[in-house]
Amino acid sequence: MAARYLVGLDYGSESARGVLIDAETGEQCGSRVHPYAHGIIDRNPGTGAPLPRDWALQNAADYLQAAEDILTVLGRGRVIESIGVGFTASSPMPATASGEALSVLYPDDPHAYVKLWKHRAAQPQADAINRRGGAFLDNFGGRVSAEWLLAKAAQIAEEAPRTWAASERFIEAGDWLVWRLSGVEARSLGFAAYKAQYSHDDGYPDGVVAALAERLSAPLAIGSPAGGLTAQWRRRTGIEGPATVAVAVIDSHVVLPAVGAVAPGSLVGALGTSAVYLYLNDRFQPLPPGIEGVARDGSIRGLWCYEAGQAGFGDTLAWFVRSFAPDSRPEEAFGRFNREAAELRPGDAGLLALDWWSGNRVPFADGSLSGLLLGLTTATRPVDIYRSLLEALCFGARSVADLLEDGDLPIRRILMTSGLARNNPLLVQIMADALGRPVEVPEIEHATAVGAAIHGAVAGGRAADFTDGTRRFGARSATRFEPDSGNAAACDTLYARYQSLCRSDAVRDAMHALARVSRGRG
Amino acid sequence: MAARYLVGLDYGSESARGVLIDAETGEQCGSRVHPYAHGIIDRNPGTGAPLPRDWALQNAADYLQAAEDILTVLGRGRVIESIGVGFTASSPMPATASGEALSVLYPDDPHAYVKLWKHRAAQPQADAINRRGGAFLDNFGGRVSAEWLLAKAAQIAEEAPRTWAASERFIEAGDWLVWRLSGVEARSLGFAAYKAQYSHDDGYPDGVVAALAERLSAPLAIGSPAGGLTAQWRRRTGIEGPATVAVAVIDSHVVLPAVGAVAPGSLVGALGTSAVYLYLNDRFQPLPPGIEGVARDGSIRGLWCYEAGQAGFGDTLAWFVRSFAPDSRPEEAFGRFNREAAELRPGDAGLLALDWWSGNRVPFADGSLSGLLLGLTTATRPVDIYRSLLEALCFGARSVADLLEDGDLPIRRILMTSGLARNNPLLVQIMADALGRPVEVPEIEHATAVGAAIHGAVAGGRAADFTDGTRRFGARSATRFEPDSGNAAACDTLYARYQSLCRSDAVRDAMHALARVSRGRG
Repeated sequence: MAARYLVGLDYGSESARGVLIDAETGEQCGSRVHPYAHGIIDRNPGTGAPLPRDWALQNAADYLQAAEDILTVLGRGRVIESIGVGFTASSPMPATASGEALSVLYPDDPHAYVKLWKHRAAQPQADAINRRGGAFLDNFGGRVSAEWLLAKAAQIAEEAPRTWAASERFIEAGDWLVWRLSGVEARSLGFAAYKAQYSHDDGYPDGVVAALAERLSAPLAIGSPAGGLTAQWRRRTGIEGPATVAVAVIDSHVVLPAVGAVAPGSLVGALGTSAVYLYLNDRFQPLPPGIEGVARDGSIRGLWCYEAGQAGFGDTLAWFVRSFAPDSRPEEAFGRFNREAAELRPGDAGLLALDWWSGNRVPFADGSLSGLLLGLTTATRPVDIYRSLLEALCFGARSVADLLEDGDLPIRRILMTSGLARNNPLLVQIMADALGRPVEVPEIEHATAVGAAIHGAVAGGRAADFTDGTRRFGARSATRFEPDSGNAAACDTLYARYQSLCRSDAVRDAMHALARVSRGRG
Repeated sequence: MAARYLVGLDYGSESARGVLIDAETGEQCGSRVHPYAHGIIDRNPGTGAPLPRDWALQNAADYLQAAEDILTVLGRGRVIESIGVGFTASSPMPATASGEALSVLYPDDPHAYVKLWKHRAAQPQADAINRRGGAFLDNFGGRVSAEWLLAKAAQIAEEAPRTWAASERFIEAGDWLVWRLSGVEARSLGFAAYKAQYSHDDGYPDGVVAALAERLSAPLAIGSPAGGLTAQWRRRTGIEGPATVAVAVIDSHVVLPAVGAVAPGSLVGALGTSAVYLYLNDRFQPLPPGIEGVARDGSIRGLWCYEAGQAGFGDTLAWFVRSFAPDSRPEEAFGRFNREAAELRPGDAGLLALDWWSGNRVPFADGSLSGLLLGLTTATRPVDIYRSLLEALCFGARSVADLLEDGDLPIRRILMTSGLARNNPLLVQIMADALGRPVEVPEIEHATAVGAAIHGAVAGGRAADFTDGTRRFGARSATRFEPDSGNAAACDTLYARYQSLCRSDAVRDAMHALARVSRGRG
């Protein structure tokens, strides 16, 4: 009998990755990365002029190119049982009723392109939606983020009414990819619940963006099959077998079964360019103030998943090495700064940072906030700044954990995933110190893509449910970091100051004033 | 008839400079720089171990070596009418009754050395003096600085009682140098008034530091002759003529007649490693809150001189290039960053800084405060940080000007001096924008040393008074920078935020907490 395989696809900000997994043994047999031809687009595709700096677009054609390459390399001549898809979100795009990306029809119009998750230019629209308010915001702290689908739809409707008129669908790029692969417009409850405020009871919120409802469609539970890979895609890729395409899942959520987080009380941090924290619970508790959202069945079926995050994480560290070691290879620079920073204990650097280089998600959901460094002296060295950034990023994680526990959502286990977590043990040790709890880093390659494959396994019937999928295909071990009790007092002191700076009106008002001055010039 | 000359000596933090001036024509005929052999001492001279980072010592022998070199090069075989001395302050040292530096007798004892102005380890002693209080603090905002003589004396008395017992004199290094050159212990009213809280009416304050009074002596008005150069120094240097040595003057004050600031209403900023602001007035006004001190006759005879400053200025910019362009020559790096920063208008950088890299003088007189950068994003470039540092340093100057005017001390003219002011037109333009007033930069080489020479000219009788000295030997022209009205609104917005961050308890408490954590470790 021919071997049978699962494919998991992980569509990130810069590239897509696929893994090939033996459906019987759970072994990873191959992987493939495909960088997007156009990357993150920061110039107007029509004029070539730089876009405002809060814009971030992508070209949907790049996703198809990546899919063709990855599926061909991994799947040609193989029996593929299922294909699961994790995708950045909210990265919505306008399309026609037949699933054509609008950017194919209007290649010069920036609003015809995918608005990548980190496109934050819809802040005025988010503000307007939040001013009007509504019950649909109850599970989202009373507000939508500028990053989410509703705000991005409103931005197009407002700034480019003709583009909006020409858009027959407004759809997450992950759902759109599933549509192209399966021929079925099968949207994901994960995207819909967290990024478009869809609820089981009330559907999509009414009347928030004019004529948006007709551009959406009802979502399917995660782990559902959308359909089989189309004949056209089979020809293009040489894939055999049922190749059931699962509905897409938010990339940060899809990782849960891969790292073994399928039980209540699990807090999982995905430390990437930004950081996403997911907390699973088996009963509903009202959303703690500052936590961003909660929905049921959008991440792991049957559980409530609370979502929070840091708008910046790895990007902030990348900024650091770019700024202080512009002539070094980043890996070399990180190695050197990690070695030096490991010699310092919390507070030794004499600095305190607010980790808002890319804005703040928790607790303010305010993209116009920005980073702060305090304690600088003429004796401050670059490594001191690096150390304080690591500490601040971990304090950001602690403030998420504190908000959950203050909201009667007890944390039983903390997992940190991603390449950053696996490659930077100093960061994870500081995380354990800052959180005052053990932190586990599951040992698994390509966790997000494996998670996508598990979703495919559930959709295709290979796994009975997510727990079964985790057991078969998830991580088999984890590295555990214990907090260093000798650092607890210094961490508590620094964290108390971090919190009081977070809450300082003088600090946030200054950030807002700077944003206004620079927007006034823009 | 042989030409006759004046010599002016400027003893800075790293080196001493001398200028030779033709007493008839006022022309500068020569100059000489002599770096101190031991520089700023940051290691324990006994053990070689690093000193705590708030220590900064110097070796008094270096001053004599510099004097011998400079006076020989400039004076040998010449008729020198007078020698004036400007000196860093407060840089006090213990000595014997005969004028021997205690470090000659106890070379292994750090407390036997000069405590350079920027030695800040006497903060606990300054705090204790300030807690006890007293009328002698009325003209100094109710507090002494850790940098001043009283605190430094208290530090020795407390931490090294045997060294204190062996000290028969405790004297500013500038006064000590005059003593060595002239053979007369002639202290300066400038040092005494500003750094040891001496007043015409009450003398030195009583009982602040045990047994300090017997280690001091009454000061002479600035512009007074101490005595002629001793026979021994004449032999060593080959100097001829009367060579009247004037009493020493605080280096930042000595510059006033050189730049033409001898009239009421003048505000002079000396932008060096740190910045000192002097404001002259012909009538007494109570010290505005936040301004550091006022005394009469200590700077220009007959005028009240109000003093304020920024603990860091050029050192903060030096930190910037050291941190962001470690492999470039500083001049090259400054040139490049100035060119790039000149393309930005106020606020364009998107950053706001508090310029407290070396602590704060005005309005808090708190060396444990530290620098802050706010507004950082992943798009922040090094030049943005540079620009925000320039702006913050100028906002620090504006807060001094505002405090003066709020205290009914009208500013009629603003002058900025020093190499930094002359070499960095962008800085001075930002200063004019931040202050919202014209700023003049007098065109004169070696202004501090020329000012010292003018003091010598007054002491030696060549000039009738300081106004006459200024006319004969001071700057003959100035470059004028007008504020750019197009930048006024942005400057006002940024400055309002700067002020509110200054006043934020959350900000200052965090700085204090960091200082405590790092001291607890020290």
